[in-house]
Amino acid sequence: MINFNWKIYKFTSSSRARTGFLTTPHGKVNTPAFIFCATKGALKTLPTNDKVNTYTQIILSNTYHLMLQPGGEIISKHKGLHNFMNWQGPILTDSGGFQIFSLGHGSVADEIKGRHFNNNKNKSLLEVSEKGALFKSYIDGSKQLLTPEKSISIQRQVGADIILVFDECTPYHVDKDYTFSSMERSHRWSIRSLNAFNDDKEFPSQTGSAGKQALYGIIQGGAYKDLRKISIDFNMNNNFFGLAIGGSLGSSKEQMNDIVQYTASKLGTHHPIHLLGIGEPVDIWNFVRWGVDTFDCVNPTRIARHGTALVRNKLDKINIKNSKYRDDFNKLDKLCNCNTCINYSRSYLHHLFKIDEILGLQLLTSHNVHYMNSMMEFIRDAINNDSLDQAQNSWFLN
Amino acid sequence: MINFNWKIYKFTSSSRARTGFLTTPHGKVNTPAFIFCATKGALKTLPTNDKVNTYTQIILSNTYHLMLQPGGEIISKHKGLHNFMNWQGPILTDSGGFQIFSLGHGSVADEIKGRHFNNNKNKSLLEVSEKGALFKSYIDGSKQLLTPEKSISIQRQVGADIILVFDECTPYHVDKDYTFSSMERSHRWSIRSLNAFNDDKEFPSQTGSAGKQALYGIIQGGAYKDLRKISIDFNMNNNFFGLAIGGSLGSSKEQMNDIVQYTASKLGTHHPIHLLGIGEPVDIWNFVRWGVDTFDCVNPTRIARHGTALVRNKLDKINIKNSKYRDDFNKLDKLCNCNTCINYSRSYLHHLFKIDEILGLQLLTSHNVHYMNSMMEFIRDAINNDSLDQAQNSWFLN
Repeated sequence: MINFNWKIYKFTSSSRARTGFLTTPHGKVNTPAFIFCATKGALKTLPTNDKVNTYTQIILSNTYHLMLQPGGEIISKHKGLHNFMNWQGPILTDSGGFQIFSLGHGSVADEIKGRHFNNNKNKSLLEVSEKGALFKSYIDGSKQLLTPEKSISIQRQVGADIILVFDECTPYHVDKDYTFSSMERSHRWSIRSLNAFNDDKEFPSQTGSAGKQALYGIIQGGAYKDLRKISIDFNMNNNFFGLAIGGSLGSSKEQMNDIVQYTASKLGTHHPIHLLGIGEPVDIWNFVRWGVDTFDCVNPTRIARHGTALVRNKLDKINIKNSKYRDDFNKLDKLCNCNTCINYSRSYLHHLFKIDEILGLQLLTSHNVHYMNSMMEFIRDAINNDSLDQAQNSWFLN
Repeated sequence: MINFNWKIYKFTSSSRARTGFLTTPHGKVNTPAFIFCATKGALKTLPTNDKVNTYTQIILSNTYHLMLQPGGEIISKHKGLHNFMNWQGPILTDSGGFQIFSLGHGSVADEIKGRHFNNNKNKSLLEVSEKGALFKSYIDGSKQLLTPEKSISIQRQVGADIILVFDECTPYHVDKDYTFSSMERSHRWSIRSLNAFNDDKEFPSQTGSAGKQALYGIIQGGAYKDLRKISIDFNMNNNFFGLAIGGSLGSSKEQMNDIVQYTASKLGTHHPIHLLGIGEPVDIWNFVRWGVDTFDCVNPTRIARHGTALVRNKLDKINIKNSKYRDDFNKLDKLCNCNTCINYSRSYLHHLFKIDEILGLQLLTSHNVHYMNSMMEFIRDAINNDSLDQAQNSWFLN
């Protein structure tokens, strides 16, 4: 595991919160960190060289989407995703498992958080078998088989720094038996992913110039602690560089908090810990306390495109489309010094959404990315100063 | 006319082409220059502080659109459009006349260039009378009367540096009698605009903090030289800071060239000359030779949003959506050093359009703006070096 390193810098006295450094071939990530979604190889609305404005450390792309468009071959010809999208910082790719789940069962975010089950979704997932998952491509309708070996192979072509084992992201609405057998299969897929990852000879064309990767295992078990325990033991006993907490986290904030606490607090300090699909500011403040090091979620950028700006107050957001902002000459967030807040008023941003101007989506996205990065820096400072509780009150202006 | 100045720097030996400096309270414009459209108070997809990337000197907004949304009052409360949209360079506003035309007769660009007449357009223009033009608002259906006095009043509220008299932009498909009577009415409206402009007492709340303006007259007469002559005389005999060439320019490139040549060559050197609605690169090279100093058109930014990039070759554009760019690893334009060309391949830009990613629109818009500004600089250098013909061949790689 040349070029990779995980080092914890400081712990807090009253929680498992810690700061650390996650070193990759494309740079060091100060943790806790938020990972922004560039699902299809683009940070939606943000040119990658806007990094300086927003202090983004690391981004995430989706294997399944990239495999369908532009395809691994095009990315490989660019010598990897970093060059293709001109992002020279660290990248994480998911394994495609998240998409199996999404396409098979409905909204990913809703399922992780147990919000509802929508039966009417178009199901592009044709079959999940021991071999892998058979999809219908949403691009051209062609049948696509994604296996652990194929997922690792594509992730090597894409060349992300951190890659994930191929798993089924078990939804909330299934029963314990299904969750158990899905977990067991994901464990077998994990071993196949690990073998594929370690066996360079099988992927001669995908290694080398696209750079080296580190592999994360994924902890399954849904909202069942006894299953989580089995998955924790499985993952701790295999040679993964990092560990991700995947699958359903239950149907309520309390249950989610309980499951994350239970799982994360058993994972020790030898691995960087990633929590998949969680991005609400208040959740992040809570979950760093259980030792989560990195988070990802489409939320901060997606809500921006619907007019919602993250701001430092008790509710932590405002919707700029609300008519009360028509003649509000203040900046979006009075404590923010991002490009958007320095240069534009709420009234102007309201106007941009009123006229359906793309620039509005860009300016709010840029602000939300800046907000998340500032918050993570605030959290890191608070951990280093052992003042997390006071810092949280101060962040939300309580 | 404090803060404003127009000075010609150099002429060429074999044409009327000239370079000059158009000084405004928000800075100096090196001419010939291209004016980019920020129709509704936004350079579509471009944050205004991207100026450094694209060398944009001056932008244009539309009185009619701004009057309906957000309304002059909101802009006035921001102390003018410069602050509202955070653009501290020079701004020109049209008078609303362009929109009367557009809403009454169909596509503006098609009409100026005589391409066709579309009878099926939704007509929001209710009535044109001596008093002004009665519209139905496309925002809320309310009836709106735009008069010369109201147009000037709103343009003062908006606070652009260069403002235009209120005119009817006469279309191509109407007959000579209509063109003549429309021109005569536009002349009467011009006098009313000039009076309103000079009579600060009538607009006490709109002057002052929003800054000083300079007024341009508009030369009408459609594709009829005898009418153009009348309008030239009218405009030259009134106290306008600058002159714009408006109305229809005929139904063919030859006729357009003929009318622009006839009109521009009679306008002397005392005024900066603006040509309304023309933005094809090759047309600009031709029309600077007749003494046109500034141009505006939505074209460079609009075509970008449809995947068309301006490039330096004989055809002067490519459509990045064409499948041949899927695995084209070159930059968009091999001679360009804009942010897009430095950082992204044609293959990546093709991918962005393939996945309908907003970032694609941004990157192509930014490139096209850079292209136009680079071309105008190339033209200015060529005029100063008296080598316009060679420069044109060199620009299009002939």
